[in-house]
Amino acid sequence: MRSQMTVCGRSFEDFLSTIERFHGCTAPGVVIGGFMVDLAQEHIGPDVEADAIVEATHCLPDAIQLFTPCTYGNGWMKVIDWDKFALTLYNKKTLEGVRVWLDLEKIRLFPNIYNWYMRLTPKGDLPLGVLLKSIEEAGRRMLSCAPVQVVQYYGKIRKGKSGVCSKCGEAYPLSQGDCCLSCQGKSYFKTK
Amino acid sequence: MRSQMTVCGRSFEDFLSTIERFHGCTAPGVVIGGFMVDLAQEHIGPDVEADAIVEATHCLPDAIQLFTPCTYGNGWMKVIDWDKFALTLYNKKTLEGVRVWLDLEKIRLFPNIYNWYMRLTPKGDLPLGVLLKSIEEAGRRMLSCAPVQVVQYYGKIRKGKSGVCSKCGEAYPLSQGDCCLSCQGKSYFKTK
Repeated sequence: MRSQMTVCGRSFEDFLSTIERFHGCTAPGVVIGGFMVDLAQEHIGPDVEADAIVEATHCLPDAIQLFTPCTYGNGWMKVIDWDKFALTLYNKKTLEGVRVWLDLEKIRLFPNIYNWYMRLTPKGDLPLGVLLKSIEEAGRRMLSCAPVQVVQYYGKIRKGKSGVCSKCGEAYPLSQGDCCLSCQGKSYFKTK
Repeated sequence: MRSQMTVCGRSFEDFLSTIERFHGCTAPGVVIGGFMVDLAQEHIGPDVEADAIVEATHCLPDAIQLFTPCTYGNGWMKVIDWDKFALTLYNKKTLEGVRVWLDLEKIRLFPNIYNWYMRLTPKGDLPLGVLLKSIEEAGRRMLSCAPVQVVQYYGKIRKGKSGVCSKCGEAYPLSQGDCCLSCQGKSYFKTK
């Protein structure tokens, strides 16, 4: 008998293939992230316009982008580089929300997840299929959540005045100085 | 007669609806971003594994995430907060790539695009449909590109050692100090 579980409104199989198409593979971090989004959405309720904050740059942003209307480019998801496995969905009007995190104490009951997360198992010793099975089995039992009030990182980022860089001729924010950061020698590229 | 143009391998209509589904609307910035990705991909060629760097936090990251395998969460796309309308796709092995940007001189020929980009038209005076028509008409003629060598922001970000925060009990990078940044009072939320 197949599992009847749904995550973010999808069967587990569809949930996994949605992740694979976007992220390139069924990374355990995105799969767990999907369970986190699912739990947060249930607490927030279907009628609330929710924005998102994620506390890590890897994996979690893709779970948010796949299973909520929030994306990096539309500004409804903010990413904080804290390297913590946690995310918050919050009502964009009241700033009340729910923070969900992977609970270290709880995942002690699921050694595969614990060992993967704490990097205690050498890569290759824990096949992806086995780990995903443990994640499916654990489901929400690996997570904790708490109500929060968001006090930072919300809302639109206001842009300052822009001008035309006297060196490259591209538009840039005047706050960067007389010419753009790239032309100030801080660029990530060299022209050939 | 309908336009036969394709962008990123799709008809213009499919291209627009793909953007709307992910981003929430057919934002002009994502539409132009799609044309930029299309041009960059042609220069890079189909056989090269390319990573991406975008120079703005708004709109452009979604064009990359929709039309390349690079996402924020898989680490193949890096975002630099320069507020410049430019992106680079580059060969992840050789670091050679192509940078594409919205060329201010070229868009003078397309006043709707110029006025929108330079924020010279009050919101509401330029209907979205009219602007999108101008963008479709301009296509690649609004863009410039140049070969570049990437010298920063490439590759995987190595994570340092992590430990368990003595206050909240969550995993965190030990480089943050004795407890995690959140427990140091730098959090974006208050618990209730």
